[in-house]
Amino acid sequence: MKIERRFAVMIGVCAICAILSFARGQSGEDNPKQAEAEARIRAVLTAQQQAWNRADVELFMDGYWHSEELSFSGSSGVFRGWEAVRARYKKSYPDQAAMGTLDFSDLEIRLLGPDAALVLGKWHLKREKDEPGGVFTLVWQRFPEGWKIIHDHTSAVATAK
Amino acid sequence: MKIERRFAVMIGVCAICAILSFARGQSGEDNPKQAEAEARIRAVLTAQQQAWNRADVELFMDGYWHSEELSFSGSSGVFRGWEAVRARYKKSYPDQAAMGTLDFSDLEIRLLGPDAALVLGKWHLKREKDEPGGVFTLVWQRFPEGWKIIHDHTSAVATAK
Repeated sequence: MKIERRFAVMIGVCAICAILSFARGQSGEDNPKQAEAEARIRAVLTAQQQAWNRADVELFMDGYWHSEELSFSGSSGVFRGWEAVRARYKKSYPDQAAMGTLDFSDLEIRLLGPDAALVLGKWHLKREKDEPGGVFTLVWQRFPEGWKIIHDHTSAVATAK
Repeated sequence: MKIERRFAVMIGVCAICAILSFARGQSGEDNPKQAEAEARIRAVLTAQQQAWNRADVELFMDGYWHSEELSFSGSSGVFRGWEAVRARYKKSYPDQAAMGTLDFSDLEIRLLGPDAALVLGKWHLKREKDEPGGVFTLVWQRFPEGWKIIHDHTSAVATAK
């Protein structure tokens, strides 16, 4: 009888665990997760924008996945690896005048799963001689050290103000 | 004693289940899934290419998520919704001469989770008067009806052959 009671308690505990785990999955637990992911991603983008506007390419690069698998698609084709992406930025924007003042706008963040996200947005550079701008697509992945951009596709739009 | 034996059998079964489930997760079960997703995505892209080369924009559009949330970033900015993306294709490529012969190359498919994928690639159009080309970033999601493009960022590369 003692063992049967222990048996019943075990089954009861299992049932409660199963119900709790089901309820947790159903109770809109995704919304706080989505909100948290969005907030973290926005924080990385804000840090990138601030770093750019202090002409700190190293800190700007911190938003990218430090890997040889990082990819960047732009007007010169595809760049592979964190070092190549950094070299491209350094070459295209050699000094503060070339970097100008960067502004991101119209950010749209969509979670693609628990550890992946898509971010669409517009970029705009205010420089002494011109104001280039365009659109970007960023694919993000969540790593133990936080959300990082694993792919960046940035292109110009002639009519962007 | 009988109950104790039943208990022992239960624990044994649980242990075997746990080991099998662990082994299944570790044994590269993701590889067939990755391979299957890749094959399905490649098939959609091949169907798109063939539809384009028959000047069948309707069939080409079948690769895209039929939703108002579909997005397309290109040289004119961001287009929203399946209808707007189709209208853009119809306007930019009004006839077979404008559509030319489309070729996708350097396809790279990365799974971002069980139901999301990132595809990088190059596009090349062979037309009577010119041969534009460039790079694209496609974000895919798996729906009950199959894998569909939920976001497309396509841009030109001047040096693409």
